[in-house]
Amino acid sequence: MTYSVGQEFLSELVGTAMLLLLGGGVVATAILTKSKGLGGGWLLINFGWGLAVFAGVSVSYASGAHLNPAVTVGLLASGGFTQGIGVALLYIVAQLLGAMIGALLVWLAFKKHFDEEENAGTILGVFSTGPEIRSYAWNLITEIIGTFVLVFVVIAFGHAGDAATKSPAGLAALGALPVALLVVGIGASLGGPTGYAINPARDLGPRIMHAILPIRHKGSSDWGYAWVPVIGPLLGGLIAGLLSRVLLP
Amino acid sequence: MTYSVGQEFLSELVGTAMLLLLGGGVVATAILTKSKGLGGGWLLINFGWGLAVFAGVSVSYASGAHLNPAVTVGLLASGGFTQGIGVALLYIVAQLLGAMIGALLVWLAFKKHFDEEENAGTILGVFSTGPEIRSYAWNLITEIIGTFVLVFVVIAFGHAGDAATKSPAGLAALGALPVALLVVGIGASLGGPTGYAINPARDLGPRIMHAILPIRHKGSSDWGYAWVPVIGPLLGGLIAGLLSRVLLP
Amino acid sequence: MTYSVGQEFLSELVGTAMLLLLGGGVVATAILTKSKGLGGGWLLINFGWGLAVFAGVSVSYASGAHLNPAVTVGLLASGGFTQGIGVALLYIVAQLLGAMIGALLVWLAFKKHFDEEENAGTILGVFSTGPEIRSYAWNLITEIIGTFVLVFVVIAFGHAGDAATKSPAGLAALGALPVALLVVGIGASLGGPTGYAINPARDLGPRIMHAILPIRHKGSSDWGYAWVPVIGPLLGGLIAGLLSRVLLP
Amino acid sequence: MTYSVGQEFLSELVGTAMLLLLGGGVVATAILTKSKGLGGGWLLINFGWGLAVFAGVSVSYASGAHLNPAVTVGLLASGGFTQGIGVALLYIVAQLLGAMIGALLVWLAFKKHFDEEENAGTILGVFSTGPEIRSYAWNLITEIIGTFVLVFVVIAFGHAGDAATKSPAGLAALGALPVALLVVGIGASLGGPTGYAINPARDLGPRIMHAILPIRHKGSSDWGYAWVPVIGPLLGGLIAGLLSRVLLP
Repeated sequence: MTYSVGQEFLSELVGTAMLLLLGGGVVATAILTKSKGLGGGWLLINFGWGLAVFAGVSVSYASGAHLNPAVTVGLLASGGFTQGIGVALLYIVAQLLGAMIGALLVWLAFKKHFDEEENAGTILGVFSTGPEIRSYAWNLITEIIGTFVLVFVVIAFGHAGDAATKSPAGLAALGALPVALLVVGIGASLGGPTGYAINPARDLGPRIMHAILPIRHKGSSDWGYAWVPVIGPLLGGLIAGLLSRVLLP
Repeated sequence: MTYSVGQEFLSELVGTAMLLLLGGGVVATAILTKSKGLGGGWLLINFGWGLAVFAGVSVSYASGAHLNPAVTVGLLASGGFTQGIGVALLYIVAQLLGAMIGALLVWLAFKKHFDEEENAGTILGVFSTGPEIRSYAWNLITEIIGTFVLVFVVIAFGHAGDAATKSPAGLAALGALPVALLVVGIGASLGGPTGYAINPARDLGPRIMHAILPIRHKGSSDWGYAWVPVIGPLLGGLIAGLLSRVLLP
Repeated sequence: MTYSVGQEFLSELVGTAMLLLLGGGVVATAILTKSKGLGGGWLLINFGWGLAVFAGVSVSYASGAHLNPAVTVGLLASGGFTQGIGVALLYIVAQLLGAMIGALLVWLAFKKHFDEEENAGTILGVFSTGPEIRSYAWNLITEIIGTFVLVFVVIAFGHAGDAATKSPAGLAALGALPVALLVVGIGASLGGPTGYAINPARDLGPRIMHAILPIRHKGSSDWGYAWVPVIGPLLGGLIAGLLSRVLLP
Repeated sequence: MTYSVGQEFLSELVGTAMLLLLGGGVVATAILTKSKGLGGGWLLINFGWGLAVFAGVSVSYASGAHLNPAVTVGLLASGGFTQGIGVALLYIVAQLLGAMIGALLVWLAFKKHFDEEENAGTILGVFSTGPEIRSYAWNLITEIIGTFVLVFVVIAFGHAGDAATKSPAGLAALGALPVALLVVGIGASLGGPTGYAINPARDLGPRIMHAILPIRHKGSSDWGYAWVPVIGPLLGGLIAGLLSRVLLP
């Protein structure tokens, strides 16, 4: 089945909104004051983001569910995305808009908890990532490595598939599971230093919303760090795409 | 294979009873006094409800396993349920009855722990949901958003399937996994404020049982809040069904 | 492919040994002194037992992987096991022997930790289940309900399958996943009061080994309770088998 | 599709590097000072290693993804690897090199956290395993039993598959899931005493890197223990391979 570019644009937008709604949501559940899941811990956050990917990919079948500019760039570099740079740019615009919408919905779903939260760092943490030990060079390396893993393994997934056989009924919906599991694993394993943005839209879109929204006790949006989770993932995705041509037969 | 309306009624009833037995059970395991799982935490509760969906859907194949009036309403609105409003109402009655039976079984399975539990709020928490910060309008919005995610993604699952290919032996039972994972994710991400009813039968059926059963230290059944987890999910399911016609090609 | 009765006997024995090795092992990891996983919590134990089922079922394909007398009895009652009561009894003997071997291997794998463990209740807890609130009648009801869920849903899994289609390469090994997930769910939701034996061989075999093995600080094997996790599961399995004829079309 | 021996060598190297990057990474996330996942617990580590296997296997399709000398030896002994001892030795060299590269990448990703970590035992723990109660004989038995489970069940997975049916698109990437789940289970259940090396390359490669790298507060690489997680897994794999000929029809 083929879709129009407009349908693909909408698909990336809706999928990334879903990703950020559930991804931002699990952080809100785990850290915002008076939440039932307060103190739920790192594994809760890892599963929450993984299942956010699961839901986001599931609703974004029309465009192949990139949901992440680093994936789009990586697939371009690997030769796995053949619609050209113009469409790729459209995808990235859709991802950024979708991420902003998802962050807005998190704010609405947790409105009263945001109102009562007095820690500005906690509030920003629901929207965007930040490093535990600030060191732009090493933070960048961590984001490059994490995103490399994401894009490289996603490309390997594509090599394993057999496009000629249709998925059986009921099981097709499991097609989103491998990348969801991968994101749980990247978070669990490589999220410790910077909080694993591994996706420029996931970090920049919500950071813009943080700056815009009238959140009661919010502080700085930390624009000084904002370039790290944009440039790092783009470089990681690019490297993964290029290396996949050599390392993945 | 086709089933009679009577078989479908029974299927919704048995499936929703299974859902509430395991769903109510995980809350009981995590919060009732002297339970081996006491203090098990939010992720335990999220997985418990997800696997409750897994079991409930698995035994409810004859009716397509709605197990939730919001799903039935959403499928009606999306055009994905073609048996008409009369059969839909029958499904909803079965779901409510099933949820009541499931809650009764939880009470029996944990009878001695209920007898020794002296906190009335804890007892009600095994049966029904309640908000951490009471604000009917915002609680309603949280339930609308959570149920929208559930129903919208479930509809997307249906678009991905290929009904013409049968599932292979042994793997067919995995057909219930996507929605189970989705419910783990919704709980982890959007359950913090209200405890994610996202299903009118899941909340109202057990609340009725809480009012009826001779539980030793029980308090109020909190009827003032009871409309929120009924109306919110119905609205969320309706919006998901209607928007799916626009947003899911 | 068909197997001889001898191969089926060996299959039940090896599978149940694997089940108890990993199942007893996760309890040892979570509660024995100086273990790296000490205090790992209820969800760790639930996943450990579920994945013990996954491994046990995976190696027991020749016999259909009952690994549990309650499953054998339930399938007999449902009409899903057609080799007769004689073969069923052989299966049960193999399950009991396998469970004893698994418990022995747990003792060997954790030998030094058993040597240093001074709490007799903790030691018995690695082998067999026990109730948090002792009440034989209510403990029995909890075990009946838990085993009912296990056997009833397993029978439903069988109804969903399509034996005519072979599983694709690589994915066939996922055939053990549904029952593994189900056991995670039963533990999370219904394990709070009695520790979810839901399997007479799982409880009795290790209890016999506990009585036999020269464990340094061991205490009573609690034979007064031993009949509950045998009779309860057998009744739960029987009821599930009979009710499946009415409730599962 | 067939691959050259060179492609297979690269496949084992890349796959084991991925395994160690995510496997070492989850330990770093859970125990290194100032990590966001500090104190994440045993289940986090178990899932992290399991998902490390998932990613490693996914990128190592060209060689069948042994990623572990014990698996290579076990498959040789079972008759499941027919390319001869020479190619098996090449695989093992690739696995060791890959494990070293993976450990290097963990050091880079967590560089600032290593710099600030002052506990030498914690630093070594990110690279290699060590026993909680030092007893070479019993530690060896624990590693033998753990690796036996790994290799025996992996061989059983192979018996269940049907190589003639291709996997459907999107689901093929799930082919790495069974062994990932198995490794989560082995860690949860048998990792308590020694930290489940169950793979000579996984332990020796990073230990060599620990000795080489200029890590600020590092201490001894504990070479006295280093033979246990090499010999134990090799024996466990060998026994599993031989016993599979008798116990798996």
